[in-house]
Amino acid sequence: MQAALVLTIVLSVLLGALAQKPHHCKSPPYLQGKLYVNFPEGKTVVYEQFYYDALEERIRVVAAGKEGEHDVFMDRLLLFREKVYFDISYHNKSCVKGSLDAAFIPIAIPFDAQHRAQVVLGSLSAPGQGLLVNNWVGSNAEIKANYSMTFTEFGCIPVVTIYKIDGQGHFLSSFFDIVTGMEDPSVFIPPDFCFSKNLVEQKEGKATNFFTALL
Amino acid sequence: MQAALVLTIVLSVLLGALAQKPHHCKSPPYLQGKLYVNFPEGKTVVYEQFYYDALEERIRVVAAGKEGEHDVFMDRLLLFREKVYFDISYHNKSCVKGSLDAAFIPIAIPFDAQHRAQVVLGSLSAPGQGLLVNNWVGSNAEIKANYSMTFTEFGCIPVVTIYKIDGQGHFLSSFFDIVTGMEDPSVFIPPDFCFSKNLVEQKEGKATNFFTALL
Repeated sequence: MQAALVLTIVLSVLLGALAQKPHHCKSPPYLQGKLYVNFPEGKTVVYEQFYYDALEERIRVVAAGKEGEHDVFMDRLLLFREKVYFDISYHNKSCVKGSLDAAFIPIAIPFDAQHRAQVVLGSLSAPGQGLLVNNWVGSNAEIKANYSMTFTEFGCIPVVTIYKIDGQGHFLSSFFDIVTGMEDPSVFIPPDFCFSKNLVEQKEGKATNFFTALL
Repeated sequence: MQAALVLTIVLSVLLGALAQKPHHCKSPPYLQGKLYVNFPEGKTVVYEQFYYDALEERIRVVAAGKEGEHDVFMDRLLLFREKVYFDISYHNKSCVKGSLDAAFIPIAIPFDAQHRAQVVLGSLSAPGQGLLVNNWVGSNAEIKANYSMTFTEFGCIPVVTIYKIDGQGHFLSSFFDIVTGMEDPSVFIPPDFCFSKNLVEQKEGKATNFFTALL
């Protein structure tokens, strides 16, 4: 009887500890928000507004920033299921249509990432003053990079990701103003002029992968 | 009568707008927490545990990290009112005592800093998933630096500060696991061996300022 009691207590403590361990989470399927991207050591700095739909595998990203001394602007719609992307210019009412060879990778902690730390940004001493986050590290052989990813403990919302790519430097993405859900699903529908023959330039053979597509 | 009503409405809208504007806040007088410090472009990386008492103007900081290839370790107690600091070594039971010429500067948004943005880290779509923060920028003529400071909207807790110092590079301090209050106030009392003549090395004429004292 006593042995059974001890076993029950030991098991429940063990299971409790396992349940507490941060898990490799996946972000909600619909997200919209902003992104600050800084790559090779500050040479390019871009602010992005992004819309993310993991169910239908679509991303829309509107980016503005500076690449060295040059201003950059991009309005790109990526339809991974259709294997196509559009670079949209409302100003010229024109479109560049290209093929998209990459697989859609949902926003998530990679299965082989290692948990490094759980920390509080700010303070948990009072409500509204702190945010519990997990930091994960790992490497991605395909793009030859080591990464560090910080996601919220509750909700699995991305906060910061840093990729250190061999021979290229650090790519920092800082997420903010994230909303779960989709305010306007029509952002995933290409404008009419993207189907007009005169206004669409076809780009073939361009292999855009998921990672570079967002930069 | 109508004019008075209009005036009242206009005034209340104006006052409401002013009240909403983020203000130059000051952190709570007692804080303890951790700090990740990264300076001149990643050459030195230090983790610190710090204790901060703005009422009696005392700081204790225990730091460990790497300066280039070398390991660094420091346990420093700064008593700004007594204008003295101690570098404490429990291992050798020895102390270095030095003079501290700097004024105590509380953790706060400088009065001449400009508000740049209010953003959410994570998401406010559900409780516990996001943190409302303010980013302030400005310059400090004394140390010839431009700075960016991010503090929580509620509680005025520091999150990230970046100083870009002329000719030296970026000094990034990332705060986490902050607790309002002081768990053990005895951290501000020098250990007994700091008062033994054999064990204390006196350092005179060293002008440590607040900024370098914490690095």
